[in-house]
Amino acid sequence: MKRTEIGVALLGFGNVGSGTYRALEENFALIEKKVGAKVVIKKILVRRLDAARRIDVPAELLTTNFEEILKDPKIDIVAELMGGINPATGFIKAALTAGKHVVTANKAALALSLPEFNKTAAFHHAMLRYEASVCGAIPVIGCISRALTGNRITSVKGIVNGTTNYILTRMAAEGASYEDVLKDAQALGFAEADPTGDVEGYDAANKLSVLIAAAFGVYRAPDSFERVGITGVTMDDLAAAESEGKVIKLLACAEEKDGQIEAYVKPVTVEKDSFLGRCGSEFNAVQIDCNMAGPIFLQGKGAGPEPTGSAVMGDIIEIAQAIVNGTEHAQPVTALM
Amino acid sequence: MKRTEIGVALLGFGNVGSGTYRALEENFALIEKKVGAKVVIKKILVRRLDAARRIDVPAELLTTNFEEILKDPKIDIVAELMGGINPATGFIKAALTAGKHVVTANKAALALSLPEFNKTAAFHHAMLRYEASVCGAIPVIGCISRALTGNRITSVKGIVNGTTNYILTRMAAEGASYEDVLKDAQALGFAEADPTGDVEGYDAANKLSVLIAAAFGVYRAPDSFERVGITGVTMDDLAAAESEGKVIKLLACAEEKDGQIEAYVKPVTVEKDSFLGRCGSEFNAVQIDCNMAGPIFLQGKGAGPEPTGSAVMGDIIEIAQAIVNGTEHAQPVTALM
Repeated sequence: MKRTEIGVALLGFGNVGSGTYRALEENFALIEKKVGAKVVIKKILVRRLDAARRIDVPAELLTTNFEEILKDPKIDIVAELMGGINPATGFIKAALTAGKHVVTANKAALALSLPEFNKTAAFHHAMLRYEASVCGAIPVIGCISRALTGNRITSVKGIVNGTTNYILTRMAAEGASYEDVLKDAQALGFAEADPTGDVEGYDAANKLSVLIAAAFGVYRAPDSFERVGITGVTMDDLAAAESEGKVIKLLACAEEKDGQIEAYVKPVTVEKDSFLGRCGSEFNAVQIDCNMAGPIFLQGKGAGPEPTGSAVMGDIIEIAQAIVNGTEHAQPVTALM
Repeated sequence: MKRTEIGVALLGFGNVGSGTYRALEENFALIEKKVGAKVVIKKILVRRLDAARRIDVPAELLTTNFEEILKDPKIDIVAELMGGINPATGFIKAALTAGKHVVTANKAALALSLPEFNKTAAFHHAMLRYEASVCGAIPVIGCISRALTGNRITSVKGIVNGTTNYILTRMAAEGASYEDVLKDAQALGFAEADPTGDVEGYDAANKLSVLIAAAFGVYRAPDSFERVGITGVTMDDLAAAESEGKVIKLLACAEEKDGQIEAYVKPVTVEKDSFLGRCGSEFNAVQIDCNMAGPIFLQGKGAGPEPTGSAVMGDIIEIAQAIVNGTEHAQPVTALM
């Protein structure tokens, strides 16, 4: 019997969770048309029922009990949007094992457990998608693993962390010190109270690990390649770059050389007038080099509730379409080869 | 029984046909891994068996008889790469009607017959894909119809014709006249002997028609919107733009306003320093505005045998994967809503 409704659970209701909720609410009729069934959020897992929320949702959707979601046969798709490694990793594995399809925006969990997630998904014939985990709204995973699939990818490089790009852009524009801009960025909400994950390059390294799997079909743990953050970038470094028409960007790069993947996250001096050099604080940018298509350049919003939420919804729609078409158990997961 | 080989026929063996052949040959093992079966070119339809070719192929692959392809049960996918309206349109319909899946790079045929092609494909449960028809290697159709599918697209605008961009770029850089640059472009192979299709904007209008269908789910014939080419752009126009830090580009634009699609192809003055203003002659560029993701910018090679051929191969691989997974009759065609 043709499905008329696809049930979704959101795990987490912070920025990305609420952005996903908004993206579905705003485009509900359009999404119903595309899927051929209603896509409905059935449950939202939160830590506390009485916490303040970015947006209002019906109280009956909220639960603090993951088991309730796992056992609900009306929930087809679990969207893990909590971030962090625990308990997210366990939730993803449990959902896949229960035969639920999983969408996640969680680069930390993916970077740590992608091979295991892929195996679990394949074993249980569940779909696993994670476009939102890298560069928010920019469809970089989809471009690499689908549109450019007729190519051998030779390198991927990009600006994949908004916080550090914001800090470096302002340091360069204002001749301000790292410490001063960081304080300001924290006050404005562009950097977290503990900025380590961003400024030391951990977030970018996690994203690069996910990108490497998509582009080269191999898993590289984020601690297996060079990772340098931006805390050592001085005003003198930026002034020296500026005097040569250049600018310093925190780049995440992976390149195939003689069958090996060379990868790093570190501050790199690039031409101010180049595609990556021109990518300002609000945006992320990725350059994909291919053996047939040549270079492909993608730019867009790398973060923010609605941009990231719309990427989550893109994955949910793909899975929902597969369920309606009865092909959900025959979809290849993004393969490690 | 699991398929071990997927058979492909190429219709046409000019630039795009030979580029597709090269892209498959170069990445054969990688593509076999991705598909889980060998993708093999079984037949190539040509006008004359003894014509000079861009690349050598085994003589037994060549045929001048389309019926032979249509009746060959080993051919699963027909890639129509001849261009032009006739006989391509009839071949596409005949292939779909015979239950073969079709990939095409033919914007002229698509712009004229997309609703009919879609209907025929749906009726015969055949897949129809056409990433290569717009902007060569840039995965604009895939981005719009899949990765950004969680969004309502509000506008699409871009530089989608390489010949006119080459001419305008050189006119601006050298202060040269349209006539002089055109002659040079023809000598260098960047413009055809009869350049009307490019310089009068017909090619861009065909591509815009295809983009409108992908972005807005409606069919708009290319003669239903404004189309102005570049033949009226003077050296004075370009100098006036330059004096204001601007540049003239032939833009293809479609925007939703109050439920209506406003579309045009015409020379537009844009900031030299903007994303579209900076797109030089070799590249195409597209900006997609979305209600959730914000603007997404794509740039890459808009033409050339290998870039376009790799886009054709991307579509062939998607269909081949579906055949191997047994889901090829349940895939939604790009829907007109």
